[in-house]
Parts: sequence; structure tokens; C-alpha cells
Amino acid sequence: ARTGLPEAVYAEGKTVAQLIAILSEAAAQDRPLLLTRLATSRLADLPPDLRANLDHDALSQTAIFGTPPQPAAAGVTVVCAGLADMPVVGEAVRTLAFSGVRAQVVTDVGVAGLWRLLERLDELRAARIIIAVAGMEGALFSVLAGLVSAPIIAVPTSVGHGVATGGHVALNSALASCAPGLVTVNIDNGFGAAQSALRILHAGR
Amino acid sequence: ARTGLPEAVYAEGKTVAQLIAILSEAAAQDRPLLLTRLATSRLADLPPDLRANLDHDALSQTAIFGTPPQPAAAGVTVVCAGLADMPVVGEAVRTLAFSGVRAQVVTDVGVAGLWRLLERLDELRAARIIIAVAGMEGALFSVLAGLVSAPIIAVPTSVGHGVATGGHVALNSALASCAPGLVTVNIDNGFGAAQSALRILHAGR
Amino acid sequence: ARTGLPEAVYAEGKTVAQLIAILSEAAAQDRPLLLTRLATSRLADLPPDLRANLDHDALSQTAIFGTPPQPAAAGVTVVCAGLADMPVVGEAVRTLAFSGVRAQVVTDVGVAGLWRLLERLDELRAARIIIAVAGMEGALFSVLAGLVSAPIIAVPTSVGHGVATGGHVALNSALASCAPGLVTVNIDNGFGAAQSALRILHAGR
Amino acid sequence: ARTGLPEAVYAEGKTVAQLIAILSEAAAQDRPLLLTRLATSRLADLPPDLRANLDHDALSQTAIFGTPPQPAAAGVTVVCAGLADMPVVGEAVRTLAFSGVRAQVVTDVGVAGLWRLLERLDELRAARIIIAVAGMEGALFSVLAGLVSAPIIAVPTSVGHGVATGGHVALNSALASCAPGLVTVNIDNGFGAAQSALRILHAGR
Amino acid sequence: ARTGLPEAVYAEGKTVAQLIAILSEAAAQDRPLLLTRLATSRLADLPPDLRANLDHDALSQTAIFGTPPQPAAAGVTVVCAGLADMPVVGEAVRTLAFSGVRAQVVTDVGVAGLWRLLERLDELRAARIIIAVAGMEGALFSVLAGLVSAPIIAVPTSVGHGVATGGHVALNSALASCAPGLVTVNIDNGFGAAQSALRILHAGR
Amino acid sequence: ARTGLPEAVYAEGKTVAQLIAILSEAAAQDRPLLLTRLATSRLADLPPDLRANLDHDALSQTAIFGTPPQPAAAGVTVVCAGLADMPVVGEAVRTLAFSGVRAQVVTDVGVAGLWRLLERLDELRAARIIIAVAGMEGALFSVLAGLVSAPIIAVPTSVGHGVATGGHVALNSALASCAPGLVTVNIDNGFGAAQSALRILHAGR
Amino acid sequence: ARTGLPEAVYAEGKTVAQLIAILSEAAAQDRPLLLTRLATSRLADLPPDLRANLDHDALSQTAIFGTPPQPAAAGVTVVCAGLADMPVVGEAVRTLAFSGVRAQVVTDVGVAGLWRLLERLDELRAARIIIAVAGMEGALFSVLAGLVSAPIIAVPTSVGHGVATGGHVALNSALASCAPGLVTVNIDNGFGAAQSALRILHAGR
Amino acid sequence: ARTGLPEAVYAEGKTVAQLIAILSEAAAQDRPLLLTRLATSRLADLPPDLRANLDHDALSQTAIFGTPPQPAAAGVTVVCAGLADMPVVGEAVRTLAFSGVRAQVVTDVGVAGLWRLLERLDELRAARIIIAVAGMEGALFSVLAGLVSAPIIAVPTSVGHGVATGGHVALNSALASCAPGLVTVNIDNGFGAAQSALRILHAGR
Ligand SMILES: Nc1ncnc2c1ncn2[C@@H]1O[C@H](COP(=O)(O)O)[C@@H](O)[C@H]1O
Ligand SMILES: Nc1ncnc2c1ncn2[C@@H]1O[C@H](COP(=O)(O)O)[C@@H](O)[C@H]1O
Ligand SMILES: Nc1ncnc2c1ncn2[C@@H]1O[C@H](COP(=O)(O)O)[C@@H](O)[C@H]1O
Ligand SMILES: Nc1ncnc2c1ncn2[C@@H]1O[C@H](COP(=O)(O)O)[C@@H](O)[C@H]1O
Ligand SMILES: [Mg+2]
Ligand SMILES: [Mg+2]
Ligand SMILES: [Mg+2]
Ligand SMILES: [Mg+2]
Ligand SMILES: [Mg+2]
Ligand SMILES: [Mg+2]
Ligand SMILES: [Mg+2]
Ligand SMILES: [Mg+2]
Repeated sequence: ARTGLPEAVYAEGKTVAQLIAILSEAAAQDRPLLLTRLATSRLADLPPDLRANLDHDALSQTAIFGTPPQPAAAGVTVVCAGLADMPVVGEAVRTLAFSGVRAQVVTDVGVAGLWRLLERLDELRAARIIIAVAGMEGALFSVLAGLVSAPIIAVPTSVGHGVATGGHVALNSALASCAPGLVTVNIDNGFGAAQSALRILHAGR
Repeated sequence: ARTGLPEAVYAEGKTVAQLIAILSEAAAQDRPLLLTRLATSRLADLPPDLRANLDHDALSQTAIFGTPPQPAAAGVTVVCAGLADMPVVGEAVRTLAFSGVRAQVVTDVGVAGLWRLLERLDELRAARIIIAVAGMEGALFSVLAGLVSAPIIAVPTSVGHGVATGGHVALNSALASCAPGLVTVNIDNGFGAAQSALRILHAGR
Repeated sequence: ARTGLPEAVYAEGKTVAQLIAILSEAAAQDRPLLLTRLATSRLADLPPDLRANLDHDALSQTAIFGTPPQPAAAGVTVVCAGLADMPVVGEAVRTLAFSGVRAQVVTDVGVAGLWRLLERLDELRAARIIIAVAGMEGALFSVLAGLVSAPIIAVPTSVGHGVATGGHVALNSALASCAPGLVTVNIDNGFGAAQSALRILHAGR
Repeated sequence: ARTGLPEAVYAEGKTVAQLIAILSEAAAQDRPLLLTRLATSRLADLPPDLRANLDHDALSQTAIFGTPPQPAAAGVTVVCAGLADMPVVGEAVRTLAFSGVRAQVVTDVGVAGLWRLLERLDELRAARIIIAVAGMEGALFSVLAGLVSAPIIAVPTSVGHGVATGGHVALNSALASCAPGLVTVNIDNGFGAAQSALRILHAGR
Repeated sequence: ARTGLPEAVYAEGKTVAQLIAILSEAAAQDRPLLLTRLATSRLADLPPDLRANLDHDALSQTAIFGTPPQPAAAGVTVVCAGLADMPVVGEAVRTLAFSGVRAQVVTDVGVAGLWRLLERLDELRAARIIIAVAGMEGALFSVLAGLVSAPIIAVPTSVGHGVATGGHVALNSALASCAPGLVTVNIDNGFGAAQSALRILHAGR
Repeated sequence: ARTGLPEAVYAEGKTVAQLIAILSEAAAQDRPLLLTRLATSRLADLPPDLRANLDHDALSQTAIFGTPPQPAAAGVTVVCAGLADMPVVGEAVRTLAFSGVRAQVVTDVGVAGLWRLLERLDELRAARIIIAVAGMEGALFSVLAGLVSAPIIAVPTSVGHGVATGGHVALNSALASCAPGLVTVNIDNGFGAAQSALRILHAGR
Repeated sequence: ARTGLPEAVYAEGKTVAQLIAILSEAAAQDRPLLLTRLATSRLADLPPDLRANLDHDALSQTAIFGTPPQPAAAGVTVVCAGLADMPVVGEAVRTLAFSGVRAQVVTDVGVAGLWRLLERLDELRAARIIIAVAGMEGALFSVLAGLVSAPIIAVPTSVGHGVATGGHVALNSALASCAPGLVTVNIDNGFGAAQSALRILHAGR
Repeated sequence: ARTGLPEAVYAEGKTVAQLIAILSEAAAQDRPLLLTRLATSRLADLPPDLRANLDHDALSQTAIFGTPPQPAAAGVTVVCAGLADMPVVGEAVRTLAFSGVRAQVVTDVGVAGLWRLLERLDELRAARIIIAVAGMEGALFSVLAGLVSAPIIAVPTSVGHGVATGGHVALNSALASCAPGLVTVNIDNGFGAAQSALRILHAGR
């Protein structure tokens, strides 16, 4: 794109014909491509030659087509509250990888077990940029933002039930946080959080 | 009331005539009375003899009429996140006092400054019942519930702006909390939280 | 957990591999485990040896792994309005049982047939703690709270249609109740209500 | 109006000039008129001759202009939960009176004190039509509808705070009620409930 | 029920075992029964002897078990805006029939084709009670209430898309109607509207 | 503006200094200007020379500065449901006048008195473009759109109480209308509706 | 219809029997018919003779029955932001075609790639009427309305996730637009937008 | 604060006594302080000596107490859509200044006049970090994010009416944006956006 950021194909809702056309064009131009929200069940519909060049990750429902740059560490840490947040963590990690950034991952540090989070504080404080992924009430965002001074990008997830269905409570917690300087992206938008981290990395150069 | 819990008069929206009638009846029966949401500006409208028996607290907008039992410690701690939550803390403390329970108060332990909360953890763990008061994103509720095993009654407050206006984010955070066994009352309902603590104290006898 | 409360595994959204890992670890440590939201259809995916140690209840979608303490009566009564609320009643009852507490159950006392509720009033007044489960408009919560002085934990259920879809009306009725001292948990959260009752029981010791 | 129902003037938001014009036309035609939402403070703006024919009621903010028929009993009972609901009760009672119907009023029978309601059950069961007025969680509607077989028109009021602000919880409780055959009007709409009762009375002739 | 109104079984969400138990008890007592929300696909699960006594209507998903009284005309007209509203019309008509009331039905008179409604005005004005069923924006309710003086019970339906999804726009239109004396029930609640009409018929005796 | 449409100044929230600067610049360029949402009370703050060139209309809170073209008839009719909708009608009429279009106005044709609307049908059918202004449940929009074939621009107004507070019910009624080809603008946006009519007039040339 | 606009059949939710009846009647009267929301999977249920006269379009789920007038250009352009908006574009285009209007289509001009939109500006400025179709945040509507002076009818689509689920953000963006004279229809309502364009075309004659 | 970010005092809702205590403590420690939401009208309540050290800005309602570091350019640009967004722009600019960062400001580039924005594109592309402030429909956020590759922090403002009241439409537009890598803070939270920019600046070192 004109902004220099990698473009991605949002596969959900696209027909097989459309996906084939997009992949074929990328293949012809020898251009790597990131696909998000690509259900595992749809892989079988693609022609073998295209599928052979697709590195699909079932957890995050992402696929990398072609050969993007080799990822290198850049100070980005992705942290999440619980196991159910892992698909969104994966989307962020894979989007970063596609752009040449290898992220650190810290999982299972939800605030209900605060000591697990505090035990990993040094690791978190060493990060240059943090992407924080949490659902339910999203208390992790505020606690983190009070503990570290790096930029923190909250990704609220749709993990939750009752009033938390759909992720709006975690989103609103990120927005209403009493800890200053926290920013947020849309619910489940690991892709957007990674893009935002890439913007910050570029700004730092 | 038939449940043995103290009745209170919600003064907001009642006319002066109604308040005078209620107070006069209580005076005649020599029955102490708790009034909540009684604006300081309305005191001047009451006849001097009734006013003389009113112990009004400007911060919490509560008044105690007559002479309730002398409060004694019973293991209830009221904890809050910030200065702006103090009126609601006051409503809870005064309701407890009216029923003979003297509460401990721990303030300014919002999670944006987590260390302030952790420094007072022994004090909080010593409580038999905790009433936790917080607005904005209400992350305090989850952090507390992960740290102590006493009953915790959340009181979300209407402190906040933007998406947090009116207190719904704090309320939903209490409901959606990933920390188990947290219960909640309505926004700004310090009175209800105190009543609930009284129910628990009675159950423990 | 550090709070001394039993931990539970929320099975919905976890993969079979994750469940097997969690159960195997518990088996290795000879530690009993509570699983909630475990659909009956998923049992077939588990290896026979793990499944043999699972006591699964189809109605409440809960499973108890291993051998928890033998439940004994402790004064907790779970009451509900209608037949459709039974799965949530079951989740509360099983969570209590897992922690050694045998609950009483009173069903079908919705306020549309008030006399059925009044006929069981002595039974309800004898309880030390009440968990009240109701959907639709949740009027049961207020009526109960006006009749008994024990702690009452409301569990709004997602039973209802039209404006009541999802359980928000019952939840808001619990929060807005004109009867003082009622507390509530998230919609359909029988597990949380039981945990809260356990906190209260501990506080009473 | 063409439907044979009395027309009323909703005074709020009308200018003094408009009110004078409307009243003058009614005076010229010797036609009685009902005005609702007419603030006491606005009476002073009207010319003395018009004001002389206005019977204004401060509580309900209604005014009757001219001489409507003498009210007679017709079996309509207006029942409310608390003192704060009285302005809406008044609007209903005055609208009925303007159309020649004298209503019974039963107050202070909110479900938090269920026995007060049960003590007046014979009176309520004798009514031909019931208008039930309640705010907060509106549990009164369901309890009443389970106890009497007359038509019950719920009028939710905007009495309440936190989640109950504006009256939406009481409204939704009326709509979601588990007691069959309950109908409702808009929040605070005592006028509409009275009109509905008049329609039913006409239907019964 | 104690109110003298017929009780109904809401079949959705009940297990086959529960339905069989309920029907068997009714059969043993020779008591007719109304079932609502009973999907056609579930009939096959019932034992042949019970099914033989079930008169099931696929459109309205209602079933009448046993032999209720023979319906007779009583002045109730059910009117609807469009074809998609017919299942709800059916639920109302069948509930009335179960209680011995044969309703008139007027269909396809949505206000987008106002003349169709005006052509049937005499018929509508002859009704003693009107149940009006409409989805989308529910303009039919206000137009009808301005044209006839009988009691009008609005039943908003969940027919609609975009902002009208779920029926809330039609419901709010009924509540906010500028035509006085309109009452409403919950979305898609043809059963409740019929029960309300029965209450009014009883009041008229 | 580049689109050839007249620009307007939204006065609400602008300081006196800002308004003076804007008016002075227009005066210097001898350019007429439309101001909307200019409260009468703010006129006194403006310098006499600027005020002298302001034609302010108290009802619609609009002011025309300088001398716009003389308005001529162009087939636009503005129709409204009730007296309370007149300020919004005025905003539309004045915006059209500022652009040289003199509108017809038809008032007080709300659907609760359908005959008043039908009596003016010939007049309405003669219009080239209709701007329809209504609050509460906004049934007028659908009825009109079913009766005339001209473009109809709905302007929902914030007139209403209870569920209709703020105008969202009327807005949703316009959007969900069963009558095809209706379009809508934001609540109370008489200015936008007029601009849209101007776009249509230009398209017709 | 009386308004001279073509009527359409909304197929979703209609039974096969109803569709057959409607089509048969149209066939008997030799009257062309537009069907919307007709799923491809339902075609097989129709009798071969009716199906033979149905021109069904899978993308837009529309069908044209019989032989409508031959479409001719009339200055209507349908523009959309992304590939996912194409079904709604199709519904608008087909509705116009059914009424004899052949539309221009401009796709893939979402504002994230503003230059693509600016490159096609001359084409867009040549249009007499624009229908703009966009989901997610709907920024396309405001950008377009600031660039062209033709009437612009916004069609928000339900394309989006997280806060944008269901299309409400795009709808609200159209309503709140800072660009004057934009009008909108309901979410995904390509049919209504086309009808509105037809009204404008007629007005221009 | 422990995070190294400057702390600020949110003055709204604090009593005069509280403000005096906070300022006195800062004076005693010779520590500069930022106050936000401090209404001009409240200045008169402060003692002259404290007031003398307060640099209050009426537009942004911020005050700087004492002598913070001299601001220097650091590549932060604050851009806004309209005049009404200026108070929020001011809050951001002043928070940055308090931390030693002098921001560039670009105003009046709302997308309704897209050319004004495009004319300043070089300036915007030169920024290291962009804070974008907009109300109403917030289309500015997406357009900017498609044009520049720097980090963009959206600050939705509460500027707007009808559906845009309170700023939720602009907030949702930022979250739902089709342009990748945009992050957002709470409505009107210029302070938080500035803090986030400071975090990014620190990360870049
Ligand atoms: N997982 C994702 N979440 C949010 N946005 C995405 C995601 N993947 C791709 N996008 C954005 O969606 C757009 C791609 O849409 P499309 O052209 O329909 O494939 C691009 O603007 C991407 O920046
Ligand atoms: N179709 C229906 N819509 C709304 N309420 C219903 C319906 N059918 C039955 N009910 C009510 O639902 C309750 C029966 O619920 P249950 O005892 O669970 O079968 C009774 O109170 C009925 O009045
Ligand atoms: N795709 C569509 N979106 C919105 N309204 C439609 C659509 N197709 C048809 N309609 C309208 O729906 C009504 C047809 O409904 P019905 O009579 O149930 O087929 C007519 O008033 C049409 O104007
Ligand atoms: N204008 C503002 N908007 C949002 N948050 C603020 C603002 N000013 C201060 N804060 C935050 O509010 C808290 C200060 O609250 P308090 O301690 O009550 O003064 C700190 O955490 C600040 O980071
Ligand atoms: Mg979480
Ligand atoms: Mg707080
Ligand atoms: Mg219930
Ligand atoms: Mg009440
Ligand atoms: Mg309809
Ligand atoms: Mg109106
Ligand atoms: Mg789009
Ligand atoms: Mg703006």
C-alpha cells in the first residue's frame, strides 16, 4: 500500500473464485501475501499448486503465501490473559512475522492470578512495544499500563459470556482505563494491532 | 422491615412535606432513621427541632436521625480506587454505622498504581468482608478478587467520561470478571452493598 | 488458587488436545478438577481412561474429575423460577458439591404463581445463604429479598425471548431491585454464584 | 377526536402564546380541555381569566380547563409501588376523572414489602381494570398479574438510578413478564394508561 | 391458574421427556392443554397415543391437546400488516380458540398500501377488541389507533432487517405512538396478546 | 463549497469571538451567510453593525446574514406531524430560502388524525419533493411514502419521551419503513434535509 | 403500487407455496415481478415452468420474473468501497434494471486507498444520482459527499466485525456525516436505495 | 508515576479543599503539575499564591502549575477536523508541552473539504507521530490512515448531535476503520492521546 504497510486479504466472505484470482495474481508477480480469517476447511477448495505455497496456521486462521522476509527480533511482545485469547495472539504474531518482525509471546497472565503476571514483569519491562490481548473484563490492560512505560496496544477479544458476549466489556475497559497512554484497536483485531506496532517501529527509525 | 434489615429513606425526589412527615413519625416512635441522597441544600427547609436530631454528612449525602446503636468493628473493609469514589464509600460506611458496624476504609488503591494496593494486602486479607468501590474501568474488582478469599461486593461508581459515563463499564467489568466469586450491586449503590454485608454478617452468626 | 477457592476449567472453546493435557496433569497430581460448559457430545473425544474418571452431568454440562470431598449440608439453598432455569441451578449445585457443600434445591416458584413460593417460605427462611436463579423479568429476586434476611445471590438466566433475549432484563431487575441487599453475578453464571456462596461460608467460620 | 376519546394538550414544549390560543379556542367553544405536563411555574404566564378556569394539580402537573362531567366509579383501580410513583398515578387519575371516571387508588404496595400488597388483595381483586404504576425493577407488575384476572395495564416509571435510570428496566420487566396477559404503555405515560382503560370500559358496554 | 386464565406450555427448550410427562399428566386428568413454540420436527419424538390427541398447527407452531371448548365469536379481530406476520397472528388466534373465542382475521393491510386498510375500516370498527400484529416500523399500530376506539393490543413482530432486526423498532413504535390508548406486549408474543384480550372480555361481563 | 451547495455556520459551541470573525469576513467579502443553531440570547453579544444585517428567526434558531437571492417556488413541500416539530420545519424552510427556494408548508397532519392528512393529499401529491418532519413513532413517514411518488426525505425529530427520548424511534421508523424509497437524515437535521432537496433540484435540471 | 413504483417480493421467510402462488398470479396477469432475498438453494423447489421465466442472480440473490422494460442509461452510478459490498450493489443495480434504468458501477474505491477514488472522480462527477455502498466505518459516504454535488444515497452494509458487526457503524456514519445533503437508507437495503433513485428520476421529469 | 510518565490531576469533581491540598503539596516539593478539566470559573476559589503559579488555558481547561521543562519539537503533529474540536486539541498539546514536547497543529481539515486536507499532506507525511482529533462521523481517521504511515492515534470528540451525541459514532469509526494500524483512545481524551504519543517517543529512543 501507499503507506508502506503490508496489505492483507480478509478471506472471510470471499468466494473461492475470488481467492484463486487474488493468489494467482500474487504468484504471477512473485509477491508474498498475507491472508487472514481463512478457515482450514476452505484450503481443500484451492488448486494444489496454490495450496503448496500457502503456509496456513489453523489456530490463528492465517496463511502466508510465498516467501516473506525472514523475521528478526524487534522488541515487540504479545501478552495475553488466557488460553482462549490465543487465536488473536496468533493473528498478531503472524502479521508481524509476515513483515519481518519476530515477536515474543507471554501467555496466561490474567489478573485473577496476579502473581503470574508479576513474575514476568522484568520480561515485560524489557519490551519496546507491547500488544496486550484479553477478553472478559480486560483488567489486564490497566494493570499492565500501570506497570510498564512502553507503548501498549490493547486488543480486546470476544472471549466471554453474558454481558461480555462479543467483547464489548473488554473494549470499553481498554478505553476507560485509569492508566494513561493505553490505546486500543477493534475487538479480535490482532492484525490491526500488529500493523500499529509496525507503524511505531517505523517511527522509531 | 420484616427481613430485620434497617430501612432507609431515599430522600431524592421526596417533597419537604413528605420528609417532615417521615421524620416526625420516627421522632414520635423514638425510632432511629437513615436517610440517603439528602442534599445539604435541603437541610435548611427542615424545622429546627427535626434538624437538631439529624447527623448529616455532606460528602455521602446521608443523614442519621436519632440515636442508632454504637458501631463496633465486625471485619468489614471498604476499599476504593480514587478520590472521586469517596461519596459512595461514605454511603456504605454510614449505612453500616447506622446498623452498628464500624468499617475500615482503604483508599486510593486503584490498579494504575498497583504497588499501592499490594502494600496494603495484609490489611485487606485480614478483612472478613470487603466492599470494593471503583469507577472508570473497574479493574480493581478483578485484581482484588484474585488476591483475597473473603466475600467481595463490588460497587461500580458513575465516575468516568466518554464510554465510562454513568458507570456501566465498571459495572460490566464486575459482572464479567475473570476472578470467581465476585458479586455486584447497582451503580453508586453504597447503601445496597452495606445491606448485603449486613446479610452476610448475620449469616455468619 | 491462591484464594483457596477451587479452580475450574471452562471447557467451551478449548480444543480436545488442551482438555486432555489439563486432565492428564490433574490425574498425574491426583488432584480433583471441576469442568464447566463441557458438552456431552465432546465426551467421546476423550481417551477412555480419562473419561472413566469423569462424572459428567448432561443437564448442567459439568463434569467432576477425580474424587472431591464428600458433600455435607451447609445451609445453602438454590431456588429457581422455572424448568428452563434448571441447567444453571445444576451448575451451581455441582460447583458447591465439588467443594464439599450439599445444597438444597427449591424449583418452580416463579412469581406468576406466588402461592407456590409462599408455601415454601419456611424452608427458604431456614437457609443460611440463598442462590436465586431466574430468567425473563426476574421478579423472583425482589420478592425473595423482601421475604428473607439471608444473603441472596441472584443468577439471572438467558431464558426469555423478545426484549428478554440473552438475560439482560433479569440481570437489570436484580441490579435495580427495590429490595435491599441483593447481589448479582453475570447471566447464567451458576459457577460464580456458588463460588460467592463459598466465600460467604468461609467468612462465617 | 374521531375515536370518541378525549383529546389532551401536551403542554411541555409549547409556547405561552400557543397555550393561550388553545385555551381561548376551547373557552370560545365552551369545551372542557385536559392539559398534561403543565409546570406549576408556567401558570403565572397565563391571563387571569383563563387561569381562573384552570384546575391545576401540582403533583401530576395536569390541569383541567372548564367543567368536564362529574366523575363516577367504574371499577378502575390505580395501584403503585412507592411514593415516587405518585405523579404518574396522578396523571392517570386525572385523565380518568376528566372523562367521568373516578378511580380507586392503592399506594405503597411495592414487592419489597409483599405483605402490604397481600393485605389489600381483596380490594385489588374487586377491580374491573387495574392500572399498575412502578419504577425501579417493576416486579410489582408480574406479582399483580399472577394474583388477579382483571386487565392490568403496566405504567413503568422513570423512578430509579444506575441501570434503572429513565425507566427502561421497569418497562422491560413489564414486557418480559412471566405472568400472562399483562400489557404496557410507555414510561411515565399515566395519560396513555388511562386512555387504554377508557377504551376497555367502552368495549365492555 | 389461580387467575382463571388458561395455562400454556412453552415447548421450546423443554426436553422430550419433560413434554411427555406434562402431556401424560394432562391426559390422566382429562385436561386440555395449549402448547406454544412446538416445532413440527419434534412431533415425531412423541409416543403415538399422545400425538393422536395433539392438534398441531405448523404455521403458528402451536398444538392443542385434548378437547377445549367449542370457540364462539366474541368480537375479537386480529389484524396484521404482512404475510410474514402470519405465524404470530396464528399464535394469537389459536390461544383464543383454546379458550373458546373464535377471532376474525384481517391480513395484508400494512400502511404502505393505506387504501387496503381503509377499505376494511367498517369491519375493523365493528370489532370489540383488536389485536394488531406488525413488524418492521410498526406504523400500522398508530394508524389503527387513530381510526378505531376499541382497545388495541399491539404485537410487534421480529419481522425486519437492519435496524429492525429482532422487532425492537416495531415495539418502540407501539410504545411511542402519538395515538392515545394503545397498549403493547413483548415482541412476537401472540400468546400474551390473546391472554390480554381474554382478560378484557372477562372484565366486560 | 466545491460542491456548489451553500455553506452554513453551526453556531452552537462557537465563541462570540469566533462568530464575529466569521461574520466580519463574510461582510468584507459581501457574501451572504446562513447560521444555524444560533440562540436568540446570543444576539445581544454581537456588535450592532453585524446584528443589523442578521435576519434571525427565533423559532428555528437560524439567521441569514446579508442578502441571499429572492426565493422562488420550486416544488418543495415541508410537511410535519405536530406543533412541536415546527423548529425543525423552520430550519429546513430557512435553509431552502437562503438558496433561493421558497417551500410550501403543511402542518399538523400526524397519523393519529389520519383524515387531516388525507384531506391534504392532492396538495402533497402535487409536490416535486417532500421533506417530512415527525417525532415520537414517526408513522407519518411510512404513510406518506405509500401515498405519493415524489422523493421523500424524512427528518426524525427529538420530540418524544420515554423510549422516544432523543428521536431514535422516529429515526428507526424511517429506516425500517415498509414503504419503499424513503430516505432519511439525522435527528433534527432540517438543514441536511434541505441540502438534500437542493441536490435533487440540481439533478433535475 | 399506487405510487407508480415497481413492487417487489421479499422472498426470505415466504414458503414455497406462497412463492408459487405469487409467481403464478403474475404469470397469469403477464406482469413482470422482482424478487429479492431469494436464495439460490430455493430455486430447485419451484416448478420448472415458473423457474424457466426467472432470471436469478446468485450474487445479489435477486430474480426477475417475466420481461421487464429494456434498461437504458439514466445517469445513476452505484459506487462501493470493497468486494464484500458487491451483493448489495447487485441488489440496487437489479432493482434499477427491473424499472428500465441501466446503472454504472464503480467498485473498490474505499477511502483506505484514497487515490483510487480520486482517479475516478470525473466519472463520479458526471453522474446525475449516486448510490454509495460501504460497510465498516463508512467513511466513503462523507468523502464522496464532499466531492460531488449530485444527490447521494448512502447504503450502509453489514460488512464488518467487532463494533462494526451488523452495519450500525456505517449507518451512523452516514447519518452523522459532516458533509451536507447526504441521505441514507437501512443497512443492506440496495432495493430501497434504487427505489429512492427512481423517485428522484421521476421528480426530474 | 512508576512508568515514568507525568501524572495529572483530573480537577472535575474534586473539591476546592482537595485541589488546594494537592497544589500545596506540589509547591512544597517544588514539583510541576498538570491539571486537566479545570473550569475557568474555579480559579477564583484558589488562594492568590497558588493561582500565581498556575498557567491556565481557558480553551482546553488545563493548567500547568510550576515550571515544567521547556518544550522542544519531537515530530508530533496534532490534526483536527473542525473548530469545535479545538478544546481537545488543546488538551493534547498542553499535556505534551508539560512533558517537554512542542507539537505542530493542523486544523480545519475535515473530509467534507477533502482538498484542504490534501493540500497539507506533505506536512502531515513529515510527522513522526500523528494525533488525529475529530467528532461527528470521524471519517478523518480513515482518510489519514490511508495517506500516511506514521503511528496515528485517533481522539474521537463528543462534537455532534442526533446519533452522534456523545462521540460514540466517531469512536466506532476509529475502531471499525478499513485503514490498518489506527489506534484510538476514549472520547475527548486528548490527555490520553498525548500520553500514548510520549510512550511511543520513549520507545523510539
Ligand atoms: N484480520 C483482519 N482484521 C481486520 N482487518 C483486516 C484483517 N485482515 C485484513 N484486514 C484489512 O481488510 C482489508 C482487506 O480487505 P479485502 O480487500 O476485502 O481483502 C485491508 O484493508 C486489510 O488491512
Ligand atoms: N408463546 C408464548 N409466548 C410467551 N409466553 C408464553 C407462551 N406460551 C406460554 N407462555 C407462558 O410461559 C409460561 C409457561 O412456561 P413453562 O411453565 O416453562 O411452560 C406460562 O407462564 C405461560 O403463560
Ligand atoms: N430487498 C429488500 N429490502 C427491503 N425491502 C424490500 C426488499 N424487497 C422488497 N422489499 C419491500 O418489502 C415489501 C414486500 O414485502 P412482501 O409483501 O412481504 O413481499 C415491499 O413493500 C417492498 O417494497
Ligand atoms: N483529561 C484527562 N482525561 C483522562 N484522564 C485524565 C485526565 N487528566 C488526568 N487523567 C488521569 O486521571 C487520573 C487522575 O485522577 P485523580 O487522581 O482523581 O486526579 C490519572 O490516572 C490521570 O492519568
Ligand atoms: Mg481475559
Ligand atoms: Mg476506578
Ligand atoms: Mg423466571
Ligand atoms: Mg417500584
Ligand atoms: Mg409491518
Ligand atoms: Mg410525530
Ligand atoms: Mg467500507
Ligand atoms: Mg469531525
